[in-house]
Amino acid sequence: MIEAAILDRLRALAGDRLQTTLSIREQHSRDESGHAHVLPDAVLFAESTDDVAAVMRLASACRMPVVPFGTGTGIEGASIPVRGGLSLDLSRMDRVLEVNVDDLDARVQAGVTRLQLNEAIRPHGLFFPIDPGADASLGGMASTRASGTNAVRYGTMRENVLGLTVVTAAGAVIRTGGRARKSAAGYDLTRLFVGSEGTLGVITEVQLRLHGQPERIASAVCTFDTLEGAVRSVIETIQLGVPVARIELLDDLQMRASIAYSKLEGFAEAPTLFYEFHGSEAGVAEQTATVAELAASHGGGEFRWAEKTEERNRLWKARHAAYYAALALAPGAHSMVADVCVPISRLAECVLAAQRDSRAAGLLAPIVGHVGDGNFHVAYLARDERERALIGRLHSALVERAIDAGGTCTGEHGIGIGKRGYLALEHGEGAVLAMQSIKQAFDPLGILNPGKVLPDAG
Amino acid sequence: MIEAAILDRLRALAGDRLQTTLSIREQHSRDESGHAHVLPDAVLFAESTDDVAAVMRLASACRMPVVPFGTGTGIEGASIPVRGGLSLDLSRMDRVLEVNVDDLDARVQAGVTRLQLNEAIRPHGLFFPIDPGADASLGGMASTRASGTNAVRYGTMRENVLGLTVVTAAGAVIRTGGRARKSAAGYDLTRLFVGSEGTLGVITEVQLRLHGQPERIASAVCTFDTLEGAVRSVIETIQLGVPVARIELLDDLQMRASIAYSKLEGFAEAPTLFYEFHGSEAGVAEQTATVAELAASHGGGEFRWAEKTEERNRLWKARHAAYYAALALAPGAHSMVADVCVPISRLAECVLAAQRDSRAAGLLAPIVGHVGDGNFHVAYLARDERERALIGRLHSALVERAIDAGGTCTGEHGIGIGKRGYLALEHGEGAVLAMQSIKQAFDPLGILNPGKVLPDAG
Repeated sequence: MIEAAILDRLRALAGDRLQTTLSIREQHSRDESGHAHVLPDAVLFAESTDDVAAVMRLASACRMPVVPFGTGTGIEGASIPVRGGLSLDLSRMDRVLEVNVDDLDARVQAGVTRLQLNEAIRPHGLFFPIDPGADASLGGMASTRASGTNAVRYGTMRENVLGLTVVTAAGAVIRTGGRARKSAAGYDLTRLFVGSEGTLGVITEVQLRLHGQPERIASAVCTFDTLEGAVRSVIETIQLGVPVARIELLDDLQMRASIAYSKLEGFAEAPTLFYEFHGSEAGVAEQTATVAELAASHGGGEFRWAEKTEERNRLWKARHAAYYAALALAPGAHSMVADVCVPISRLAECVLAAQRDSRAAGLLAPIVGHVGDGNFHVAYLARDERERALIGRLHSALVERAIDAGGTCTGEHGIGIGKRGYLALEHGEGAVLAMQSIKQAFDPLGILNPGKVLPDAG
Repeated sequence: MIEAAILDRLRALAGDRLQTTLSIREQHSRDESGHAHVLPDAVLFAESTDDVAAVMRLASACRMPVVPFGTGTGIEGASIPVRGGLSLDLSRMDRVLEVNVDDLDARVQAGVTRLQLNEAIRPHGLFFPIDPGADASLGGMASTRASGTNAVRYGTMRENVLGLTVVTAAGAVIRTGGRARKSAAGYDLTRLFVGSEGTLGVITEVQLRLHGQPERIASAVCTFDTLEGAVRSVIETIQLGVPVARIELLDDLQMRASIAYSKLEGFAEAPTLFYEFHGSEAGVAEQTATVAELAASHGGGEFRWAEKTEERNRLWKARHAAYYAALALAPGAHSMVADVCVPISRLAECVLAAQRDSRAAGLLAPIVGHVGDGNFHVAYLARDERERALIGRLHSALVERAIDAGGTCTGEHGIGIGKRGYLALEHGEGAVLAMQSIKQAFDPLGILNPGKVLPDAG
């Protein structure tokens, strides 16, 4: 509980931007995952880096937990204030601060969302490719090292964040990185904060790398006889180095869910790949010819092309709504989303085993995947306590298989609350100790998003 | 000085792999820069990660400085043992441990050089693109966040290191990263160690991302009327998003030096761009047509194509020898290499100002650059003390201009000894304090490569 005297000081700082009503606190008690809701004691809507710095100075003085909050669209509970304290909402920090068209970069406040940024830069012929589906804030995306459908070609937030403005636990404002394309000047603080889920500092501004809009964009959908055929065609596409912009898998169950939820007509309830190709006219033609040939050799049918922008948008909207479509398969069910990523050579066995195991157990567990990266999700739906327990075991087996294959327990969602137990399994005790020593150096009082990423000490 | 008792313990560990002869110590007292030589007290040739761990345990117990040494080809003094102690030579750790052809990755010991790796993977149709010119060790390249001529297309060591094995100051062995293409699991220790120049741990193994050999490679050279025209054509090439594999600038003075040193025939002593294009037949044709048009519109002449592999190798060998060619302009002169990198829109003004200033001062200072990244080098040659003082001032002015333009004091060589003073100018005091807190957490005794990267405390 934040003491009344501290609430008074926060109110003196922020006026009516400090909120303690139940409805506002409830909005900040959850994300889109099935993780248990926990109310913050109060919510403060920051409007500037200085605001955040003032909050952190006070938080340091009072040992008050501070949990940064963007759009609440995460699915690992990173923004849930599990130890109470203050939810620091950055959504009002929503200004695009600069767009450097000639240098293909931009600086935004942390609350700017990816769609908002894309609106702002579209007239300049530019776009920002990282697309986790939800219209997340760029500060939140940096914090969770987000990626999504375009990462196979354009990389993740790791590759597309050039620099950051960060407020430290003690309330100091630091700048990391810069606008140069590369630098060998000192420790890579930018990459350290990217993916640290608000546990090392509060990101208030993000300098981003932008990309020129491709001359030609083409989207297609291809249905496969078998899941294995679909995955194998992806593996060969990647091994050949075809620069596909998107290559997304939906298994038959996910297709059933998406057809119903997104009213997709004329699609089959069968393993399906959604593709997107970016490049020059000739380049796209070359890519699509290669990919279509690989698909056909693995039991893929005709390519169904989405020629018009509207048709393309409808397709990707359906892909992005896959999680909501999955939830609609069993309204009221508890969801748990796996997010493993493995070396591409191990992708087929891991996807097939995940599907086999959940079907053998009689679970509803549709699969979608950014398979070009070796990353896939299983949306486990638990209709009762028995299924919930079962899912815990199946998910653990899936993660262990992925780590055993040289992969990771989370490709893009982050560790948050629920995957802390896998950190040492994946990285080893020594690496986790090194992470803990960084946490101790940056946040000795443990006030920055406590209970996340690192396992509890002792 | 390492005490005799400690030397005895080192000898007990390493036998005759511990060397204290003057000639061996001299080989480890310098790199290829003009930085003053400093002798280590002893040199230990490690043969395994366990060797390194044993050395670090002893070093921790005795507070002995340890300076990792690869090939000694750095040019910022990172491997010079400025506080004495032990030079830890990793060159005998030269095994390629695994090549995962299907996943396009490999794991190597830190002493494997980039040419050795490329030899090993060529039969599999793969290559490793990072090419700083010298045949550096991959551990050293990771430590300095190296890049070079191919970075404009393939990124730097930051983007191409997937994971590391690192020995900590206390002698623990940790693994960072993994083989998955992306991961959101915890703090990015890999990127933290990459570029830390041996001050946070000793890198003993590197997991690297590989690339498929392009179907077609084409190299060309184009001479320009003016330096400005050459630079402007590069800027437009990058802004258009042409995926050139290499685009390298040599100014007229550097061309004079290289023609003489590398016996290049038929080239003019004029501003020149060296290009390389990778892709499919059609893709390369498309790229070269665009680039040739841009060059012509900025006073570029005919493209001189290097069709044959031998001719191409001769060209790039000459480019790689540029530093040695520059040194040969004034044998015995003291050299000081600038390594600034700026946003591409500011490249022309920065390059032109650097050339104008050094010529106005009557200095020999040829310019080369990985200009597609906005990165260029000025090889300042000081023939006497007066010139040496002058160069210090010109270099400072150049760095300040670069940082003012949003750039960095070092694009790829690292901070080492000489650029520590610019760290706070570039990143701000707050970021340097954050770096110092990491150093303190990872190396509380200050035994890992002391006197490098961070400014001295107090």
